[in-house]
Amino acid sequence: MNDKQRVAEHAAQQIKNGMLVGLGTGSTANYFIEALARRQQEEGLQIEVVASSIVSSIKALQLGLQLRSMEHIAQLDVYVDGADEVAPDLTLLKGRGSDLVREKLLAKASKAFWVLIDESKQVQRIGQNFPIPIEVIPFAWQLVNQSLTNLGGTGTLRSNGDGLFVTSHGSLVLDSVFAADVDGKSLNDTLNAIPGIVEHGIFANLTTAVFCGQNGAIEEKWI
Amino acid sequence: MNDKQRVAEHAAQQIKNGMLVGLGTGSTANYFIEALARRQQEEGLQIEVVASSIVSSIKALQLGLQLRSMEHIAQLDVYVDGADEVAPDLTLLKGRGSDLVREKLLAKASKAFWVLIDESKQVQRIGQNFPIPIEVIPFAWQLVNQSLTNLGGTGTLRSNGDGLFVTSHGSLVLDSVFAADVDGKSLNDTLNAIPGIVEHGIFANLTTAVFCGQNGAIEEKWI
Repeated sequence: MNDKQRVAEHAAQQIKNGMLVGLGTGSTANYFIEALARRQQEEGLQIEVVASSIVSSIKALQLGLQLRSMEHIAQLDVYVDGADEVAPDLTLLKGRGSDLVREKLLAKASKAFWVLIDESKQVQRIGQNFPIPIEVIPFAWQLVNQSLTNLGGTGTLRSNGDGLFVTSHGSLVLDSVFAADVDGKSLNDTLNAIPGIVEHGIFANLTTAVFCGQNGAIEEKWI
Repeated sequence: MNDKQRVAEHAAQQIKNGMLVGLGTGSTANYFIEALARRQQEEGLQIEVVASSIVSSIKALQLGLQLRSMEHIAQLDVYVDGADEVAPDLTLLKGRGSDLVREKLLAKASKAFWVLIDESKQVQRIGQNFPIPIEVIPFAWQLVNQSLTNLGGTGTLRSNGDGLFVTSHGSLVLDSVFAADVDGKSLNDTLNAIPGIVEHGIFANLTTAVFCGQNGAIEEKWI
């Protein structure tokens, strides 16, 4: 069992009967879905799930989990997903994938948001290892890019082979780099206020707990 | 000449050679476009324009104005548009139409934003006479609506005859009512932070001047 599997298993063990559980997307989220399905089969765990992506919904259905549609829920008990970066105040960077909005919607709609990572994802500041993905309405991308430039940032349209990368609901992505002294939480507020930005990869004030797998052990950090 | 024409004429008189001018949408914006075209024809005023909607771009082209595309500009000199409500601090409510995002983009990208209204648009608080339009990604509308409920608000999906109203880039609109003691600027920040909301009708910290036509005179309010 590797660290990703171990931390996914650890999170799955804390899920209780009757919960509505949000499923993230990615390799660690996949291990979590598998661990939930195993508990359902072996222990009769009774839960329902809602998925942050088509990929995760297909995986959940294939493993026999009871899937509910995002359109028919008002609140989740817990949303469990990975992250690309975790700052000391548990602000996250997410969104290397294409379902940033669904992920943030579920995190926001959930009573608890558990983040599953390994040691390599812990950073001193958001944007340390990755650019910040910013989803923009196509016709707005140049004016948004100008706003980023005014903030001292640099945005690059994400490409997809010969064409541009398009998110699951038709936005473009500006992968954006800012100066090292820009605080993640302030940048979150600033980006929220720029018209034409549909969503961005900074998850501030959403995390409840981070479960970090390292060298065979799990470290828990709770807000 | 009615008050709308008079205030549009007043604004057009302040446009100078060489300016890049943003055109709003609606009846007052139409008078402004006509006044600009007249100055171009009669006085040789040399300007370029960028439009917030297809309707206004067609009108500008038909009247012979030099139209530039939103995709090819970095900054405007002035954006001129109407508003549905103007609060004492010049926070606005806009967006009865379907091009809220383009309007806010141009207002944000402009060195100055002049708002043309008549007396009936002056209110004590944003949301006094109209619901606040909130554009949402279709799959997000129920979870966004739940967030509005948690804020004490009530959102109603805008309809279009037998179907739902859809904005020019595919969003749905939740026309939303909040309690009378909710401050427009705080609500602006709160709505900006809700995932699934593409844009909303509160324009805070964007207005430079309001030109208000009443009883044949023009009152100017500058920030």
